[in-house]
Amino acid sequence: MAAAPGGDFLAACRRQPVERTPVWFMRQAGRSLPEYRALRGSGSILDAIADPAIAAEVTMQPVRRYGVDAAILFSDIVVPVHAIGFGVDVVPGRGPVVAEPFTSSADLARLRDLDPEADLSHVIETVHRVLAELGPTPLIGFAGAPFTVASYLIEGGPSREFTKVKALMRADEGLWHQLMDRLVALSTTFLAAQINAGASAIQLFDSWAGSLSPKEYERFALPATKAIFEAVDGFGVPKILFGVGTGELLSQMATSGADVVGVDWRVPLDEARRRVGEGVALQGNLDPAVLFAPPSVIEEETLAVLDAAGIAPGHIFNLGHGVLPTTDPDRLAQVVDLVHTHGRAGV
Amino acid sequence: MAAAPGGDFLAACRRQPVERTPVWFMRQAGRSLPEYRALRGSGSILDAIADPAIAAEVTMQPVRRYGVDAAILFSDIVVPVHAIGFGVDVVPGRGPVVAEPFTSSADLARLRDLDPEADLSHVIETVHRVLAELGPTPLIGFAGAPFTVASYLIEGGPSREFTKVKALMRADEGLWHQLMDRLVALSTTFLAAQINAGASAIQLFDSWAGSLSPKEYERFALPATKAIFEAVDGFGVPKILFGVGTGELLSQMATSGADVVGVDWRVPLDEARRRVGEGVALQGNLDPAVLFAPPSVIEEETLAVLDAAGIAPGHIFNLGHGVLPTTDPDRLAQVVDLVHTHGRAGV
Repeated sequence: MAAAPGGDFLAACRRQPVERTPVWFMRQAGRSLPEYRALRGSGSILDAIADPAIAAEVTMQPVRRYGVDAAILFSDIVVPVHAIGFGVDVVPGRGPVVAEPFTSSADLARLRDLDPEADLSHVIETVHRVLAELGPTPLIGFAGAPFTVASYLIEGGPSREFTKVKALMRADEGLWHQLMDRLVALSTTFLAAQINAGASAIQLFDSWAGSLSPKEYERFALPATKAIFEAVDGFGVPKILFGVGTGELLSQMATSGADVVGVDWRVPLDEARRRVGEGVALQGNLDPAVLFAPPSVIEEETLAVLDAAGIAPGHIFNLGHGVLPTTDPDRLAQVVDLVHTHGRAGV
Repeated sequence: MAAAPGGDFLAACRRQPVERTPVWFMRQAGRSLPEYRALRGSGSILDAIADPAIAAEVTMQPVRRYGVDAAILFSDIVVPVHAIGFGVDVVPGRGPVVAEPFTSSADLARLRDLDPEADLSHVIETVHRVLAELGPTPLIGFAGAPFTVASYLIEGGPSREFTKVKALMRADEGLWHQLMDRLVALSTTFLAAQINAGASAIQLFDSWAGSLSPKEYERFALPATKAIFEAVDGFGVPKILFGVGTGELLSQMATSGADVVGVDWRVPLDEARRRVGEGVALQGNLDPAVLFAPPSVIEEETLAVLDAAGIAPGHIFNLGHGVLPTTDPDRLAQVVDLVHTHGRAGV
């Protein structure tokens, strides 16, 4: 059967049959690519994101190189809070850093709404530039889920333990939900702008949700994710929800309104399928570290992922987390070829 | 019923009825205690471990302060490889760092056997000093599981992605298992020395096993853990196996020969019980970050852990990971009181 325009990726998101299993990689546009390093140099990622010529070019680089089935907008989960002047920088090798972290209700006033025209014109122009070159390949829009964005605002930077964010959510649940409401508004406006400009799917990054127990996730994180998905549901584009170490949360994530749930390498896809049921597609789940093993092992593990995904519709091949900066691009090219050759042909 | 000497902790390890649920905390001897900071200052932890007077005093501090049901030897998982001169240091705020990481079969020769008398006399003296003061409270011996120790030797320091260790295990499985055999020998000798000196239980720290998929764990990590437990089984002391983010591995960990399996806060204990079956006890699983929440929340969450553990024998209360350095000791004292008051009285 002939692929629809933009075909297999969007079909898989909707659990429809595909010609071949679609594949893309989180952080496919990034430091693993020599052409990215040549273009970006050592400047701030937020400056690069703010320059549509650079951001569009960087978004296109992995599509040209690998022939992946989707592009993802070159962006960062802190772009909206940066745009409204919360005082965020992204430090190379470290991650987002906040000069004055969120500590009390007074800080809510620092989280005004986004004005798409004033605050996001560069994002919209980037999307337009990407679409002009992309052809039928779909573009995935990008936003951070409120819990994960809040973790940076409250901790002041990357964290392993999340003590401050957990302390705040437990000490003042009312304030926590007010903060979540502000971040729901920001991510919703950010995603809507990308969809209006032409993105044909979205991914919400709740990268650190796996630090929460299932009970905490249900009470403190999931409601905000649901609110965003509900707010953008009318656009009719597939919605992907991603996290790491979320094995215990998969069944709850499947109730979020997401069409696709991301799975890291810790949970085999057949087991993930049992946890999420038949209502959502799955995205994943090759261990990014496997790309540092010999090609024969990469092949074995890639085929094992396809095997665990099975032949039922609804699998988008990806890594379980983002491409690591020292990854050899040839190994990613190998994975794309394997998935396109062996992934569910002719179903 | 009257508690046996050393009573409730050892009974719970053996899934026997207890008077009250026993409780201790991983890293209870550490920077969270002002008396620890006063004694230790800023010197290397390896120097402190090598000094029986300091190591014994530090081991005793939390027992005196909290009345916990077990002491754990003040040690580190790199003590054996440090003792044989592999070239390891522990950098404050960072962790173990290896000057010349393990990269090839030539490095196997750097991993000679431990000679208990020559290499571990300070450890044995520390155990003797602790026992002289400890009374009936049991002392838990301490060792690193081979996978986690290997991760430091190969990565050269703490890691988030474990790319080098995973690359080595996949590129040269024969070498990997030779390395595991060396580390099995080291941890076995280290534990046997502690048990011979008087430790009445042991805990094997496989802190980073949760970075592995179930298939990888089965093939690359579990066999070495089994070998250690088998080697020390004849001593008849309870054996605890600990890891973080191991929700997907719990059923395999229960086959290791461990009497007790540690569980972090991501998996409720009733669900953990379903995964491990009735053959082992469970240890855990309060989120260390909860100790930064208000006392009312700490109480709620402590009671929730006890509730999920249920009334069947075989629960040792602990945190899901080590005490964080900035934890208020009064909050840990609160938890001990709650567990001793509410934990399974009179069963």
